Amino acid sequence: MSIPIGVVGFRGYSGVEAVGILGRHPAFESVLLEHRQDAGDDLKLVRKGGPRRITASPDAARAAGIEAVLLATPPEVSMDVTRGFLEAGIKVVDLSGAFRLRTAATYKHWYKEEHTAPDLLAEAVYGLPEYNRGQAKGARLISNPGCYPTAANLALRPLVTAGLVDRAVGVICDAKSGVSGAGRKATLKNSFCEVTENFSAYSILRHRHVPEILLTSNLFEAELSFTAQLIPIDRGILETIYFRAPKGTTSADIVSVYQAQYAEEPFVRIYEAGNVPDLHAVAHTNFCDIGVILDAPTGRAVVVSAIDNLGKGAAGQAIQNLNIIMGFDETAGLL
Amino acid sequence: MSIPIGVVGFRGYSGVEAVGILGRHPAFESVLLEHRQDAGDDLKLVRKGGPRRITASPDAARAAGIEAVLLATPPEVSMDVTRGFLEAGIKVVDLSGAFRLRTAATYKHWYKEEHTAPDLLAEAVYGLPEYNRGQAKGARLISNPGCYPTAANLALRPLVTAGLVDRAVGVICDAKSGVSGAGRKATLKNSFCEVTENFSAYSILRHRHVPEILLTSNLFEAELSFTAQLIPIDRGILETIYFRAPKGTTSADIVSVYQAQYAEEPFVRIYEAGNVPDLHAVAHTNFCDIGVILDAPTGRAVVVSAIDNLGKGAAGQAIQNLNIIMGFDETAGLL
Amino acid sequence: MSIPIGVVGFRGYSGVEAVGILGRHPAFESVLLEHRQDAGDDLKLVRKGGPRRITASPDAARAAGIEAVLLATPPEVSMDVTRGFLEAGIKVVDLSGAFRLRTAATYKHWYKEEHTAPDLLAEAVYGLPEYNRGQAKGARLISNPGCYPTAANLALRPLVTAGLVDRAVGVICDAKSGVSGAGRKATLKNSFCEVTENFSAYSILRHRHVPEILLTSNLFEAELSFTAQLIPIDRGILETIYFRAPKGTTSADIVSVYQAQYAEEPFVRIYEAGNVPDLHAVAHTNFCDIGVILDAPTGRAVVVSAIDNLGKGAAGQAIQNLNIIMGFDETAGLL
Amino acid sequence: MSIPIGVVGFRGYSGVEAVGILGRHPAFESVLLEHRQDAGDDLKLVRKGGPRRITASPDAARAAGIEAVLLATPPEVSMDVTRGFLEAGIKVVDLSGAFRLRTAATYKHWYKEEHTAPDLLAEAVYGLPEYNRGQAKGARLISNPGCYPTAANLALRPLVTAGLVDRAVGVICDAKSGVSGAGRKATLKNSFCEVTENFSAYSILRHRHVPEILLTSNLFEAELSFTAQLIPIDRGILETIYFRAPKGTTSADIVSVYQAQYAEEPFVRIYEAGNVPDLHAVAHTNFCDIGVILDAPTGRAVVVSAIDNLGKGAAGQAIQNLNIIMGFDETAGLL
Repeated sequence: MSIPIGVVGFRGYSGVEAVGILGRHPAFESVLLEHRQDAGDDLKLVRKGGPRRITASPDAARAAGIEAVLLATPPEVSMDVTRGFLEAGIKVVDLSGAFRLRTAATYKHWYKEEHTAPDLLAEAVYGLPEYNRGQAKGARLISNPGCYPTAANLALRPLVTAGLVDRAVGVICDAKSGVSGAGRKATLKNSFCEVTENFSAYSILRHRHVPEILLTSNLFEAELSFTAQLIPIDRGILETIYFRAPKGTTSADIVSVYQAQYAEEPFVRIYEAGNVPDLHAVAHTNFCDIGVILDAPTGRAVVVSAIDNLGKGAAGQAIQNLNIIMGFDETAGLL
Repeated sequence: MSIPIGVVGFRGYSGVEAVGILGRHPAFESVLLEHRQDAGDDLKLVRKGGPRRITASPDAARAAGIEAVLLATPPEVSMDVTRGFLEAGIKVVDLSGAFRLRTAATYKHWYKEEHTAPDLLAEAVYGLPEYNRGQAKGARLISNPGCYPTAANLALRPLVTAGLVDRAVGVICDAKSGVSGAGRKATLKNSFCEVTENFSAYSILRHRHVPEILLTSNLFEAELSFTAQLIPIDRGILETIYFRAPKGTTSADIVSVYQAQYAEEPFVRIYEAGNVPDLHAVAHTNFCDIGVILDAPTGRAVVVSAIDNLGKGAAGQAIQNLNIIMGFDETAGLL
Repeated sequence: MSIPIGVVGFRGYSGVEAVGILGRHPAFESVLLEHRQDAGDDLKLVRKGGPRRITASPDAARAAGIEAVLLATPPEVSMDVTRGFLEAGIKVVDLSGAFRLRTAATYKHWYKEEHTAPDLLAEAVYGLPEYNRGQAKGARLISNPGCYPTAANLALRPLVTAGLVDRAVGVICDAKSGVSGAGRKATLKNSFCEVTENFSAYSILRHRHVPEILLTSNLFEAELSFTAQLIPIDRGILETIYFRAPKGTTSADIVSVYQAQYAEEPFVRIYEAGNVPDLHAVAHTNFCDIGVILDAPTGRAVVVSAIDNLGKGAAGQAIQNLNIIMGFDETAGLL
Repeated sequence: MSIPIGVVGFRGYSGVEAVGILGRHPAFESVLLEHRQDAGDDLKLVRKGGPRRITASPDAARAAGIEAVLLATPPEVSMDVTRGFLEAGIKVVDLSGAFRLRTAATYKHWYKEEHTAPDLLAEAVYGLPEYNRGQAKGARLISNPGCYPTAANLALRPLVTAGLVDRAVGVICDAKSGVSGAGRKATLKNSFCEVTENFSAYSILRHRHVPEILLTSNLFEAELSFTAQLIPIDRGILETIYFRAPKGTTSADIVSVYQAQYAEEPFVRIYEAGNVPDLHAVAHTNFCDIGVILDAPTGRAVVVSAIDNLGKGAAGQAIQNLNIIMGFDETAGLL
């Protein structure tokens, strides 16, 4: 008997991915929670024999036996519907940025709009399992990390903690993402002819994912230069991270720090010194792959961190969090 | 001293292409005719040192010394503005489908909307120079052919005329186009993630370009099966055309028919028997390349016809027509 | 306890796909059978925690407890190694074209080389489960169908059988494939810059998959025009099939024939009349999706058939066949 | 009457591009110099009506009236043939890395092979016209800059010269290139399926273009971290450059430095502060576009520099150099 899991925003790229993973999950099954008033027929994405579809109301969800929902929705929708599900006794894993920052003021500063459910911020657990799985276990509201921050934080936090980063010099995170990271919607900017055979930078130094990176990596804003860039591909994030290591550091030292941190982690893979991942290594997986290049005499260091933005960067990590809060093996459905 | 040529719809893919060709043209220069009321700043497409920009009114155009305009606009806009330019003594090359069919009724049947300038249909010359350049010379209104029909008609008309097509069996035209053929606009269907790693058929047997193919190829609708399909590329049209040749026909016979028809044509290239073009052969050119494969014993014949949909399929052919009506060498700016 | 399944050719695209499916299979696990003498290190494809790797000899395979092998190899390799595995009591599912035709002479005619194991041709069962699963059940050698023929035959055979195809007019199969269908190897023709922004036809009327289509569809060569074409994508096959239906036929009639044939088939999906699949509908699945467009007054019919060339067109169908010969549910690991 | 210009390596991507530009040049025409012994027929790239083809010998070139040649060849070929052309009185613009560094030892260090014509190094003029056009005017051997260094140096040199870069913190140059930068050859790494939907870094901190950047930018190796990365596109280079600006610097200050340096340059375009180029802005042009983002309070600065790697990064700049050494307007054929 499968446990029904509700998915709001099941037409978006993260939602479709989540429904796909749930379809292969040994313990869960997905129920599509229809949130749009104007929803027409869209058989092309949801075929016969697929999951049930009901209205996205807490009552309907409870009646359907749903114990947890994934919100693959924009932050304003997540802020709007989360409370209702929680009050109905339904756990929430929110994939938007609604509950990732700690205060309504920080949210407003970076997202340029008011937070409409600020009282839930304190309760939300930031669901980066490699660091927060203990807290997540008992939570009823998980804020699933952003795609860029997931790749950045898994690479940066052990380095900063180990004192391997010269903070006076600072850290550069040159990030590149596939277009699905922008969501499923009609915009000229993301139309095929504008994207193909192109490459473009956006939100340079000002991307709304920056504060999330600062919170987990423990860097200050002045120490981090972050650039988001669009690759003409569907899915994948690769971040090229530059910093200065202390004199005498070897690439083996850095690899050791990573291996010590992630030896028991099922979804973080560390490459041998001198090797770095590409996007094919992580496509359609929940892995984060990390590799290191160091010029020891000068301390110039480059770390490459790669994830699938719809996997570890969104739906995959959301299922990982769902496994945690529902008491299942963290890897169920994900390997 | 360059002759100023107005371009309406200069932000669209055909318009940008036309402005680019005019920039390399020995006798013309482009003037951007602003038609949109809501036009903001769009420096990214039109840079300093580039062409002048004025309002798209016949008076402003005449004041700027413009003798001819290219309309790279949707049919409803072309139907709306053509009369004004003509009455101001300005010649018009229209790239839309507004004036390609012969009657308002046929237009309504295929375009599903009323024709708002039906009296201009009789005057418009269908600008496929390989067949109509004589008529085009004195015209003041040229209807530039559609992209699919250009590739289809240059391949089909000589075959039908020469009696090489078994009309009882009929003709299949399996057509594939790059995404720029759909125009520059925000639609979910043409967004990057929906198109990349995909291939899709649309308007099967019902595409609005069908009547244009029938008119020039002299086939009846019942004799032609036409399918339009989207390739995940920016530009290019390749049509794979199937028919049955009479017993005894050789591939050399078919190639000879083409060579006889197009020997003097600067923009039609015929391949040796057994060879067919790909899209790279015609990218960023005004050529139409045609090749033939025949299984002589059975008469099964395959013709491949390739163009750049923004070149010979739109802006290139429009400049070719402009050269004709303005009395210049037909190839000026195009080789 | 998982049953070990050997995979020869595990570095190729079909091999990688097969290893991936086996990794999610409830009853099997893969063992990599190393066939290349010059095999270097290739950690990027085969990571730690992944499958065992042993030499591709029948003895080693038997020692490893392997009961069946998948050959994701070129036909010359498959002809070379099949007998050894069979004699060692190991069942073989061959993904190459080595055993798909009935005689060595036909093989030589289409593949342009001698067949080196002609005595095995009679024994090999052509593994299109929708038609041959009965025969396949007891077989020790399954010849996995080609990618193009799978999409063509599932669409064509019911139509031909039902007499819905005017054979005097013939059938056109305009086929398009992603580049992974050409295998994993270094060729200029398949290098990125030659393929991207391109579209090209090859082996027109002469593709080696033609005889396979004829055998299953029951068409004669003179009745079928088949063109293979390269789409600039990784994976997917879409075939646009044209024929003339008898007077009085409706599209509902054709859909009914398909539904009658495939009602119980887990991997064939029929679309409502007037709708056709695109490649995203079948990507990363074992489905074959089929849709029909008909112009009833003239009988002009278009069928679109779509598969993932690495799924139902290769590795997916191979696992389906493996499930059959090993006595498991045919869908295990594939939904 | 056109002046014949020889092109060696006319089948490669830079060679094809050079032949294309020469075809539109008002004063030059190209002559294909056949260097390969095994050259077969390759009509697809060189069509009838196109340029003459002769043997790539200095004698044949002189007999054909050739005054200058472009070498679009690998460095080992360029080192091999340059002397012969020079001795025949024929000027050489070499697009390879053969003559870009100052000593044979530096060449060996970065290119990992012996320099076979070290005596020509002193004579070769590094053809970055924005800095060296004076020297280039009288030269008989021009070493055309590398693609990555062209984008990097045009952006970096004015900043370093103006003291706007905190050299203690150093400079990060995160560079991305289309696949044509790797040349036209059959490699598995550059085959379509390996590149599409991928993004990968290579030669991190060790790319052979690094010394060229150091020479012109006046940075030391310890001050520069350079990463080369492959975008799944045909053409284009975008470099995201990070540095720390002195306290009190504004983005307007940086833009002013660029404008002062490049005000009269026909091929360098500076964006208004806060705007950066993408690759579509420079595709199929000889432009280098540069934009600046600065966080004034912290001095964190990001410069984006974009070129077409086959334009300003190779063939375009080679024609610009050819214009210089042949005494023509530097922009002839390039606008």
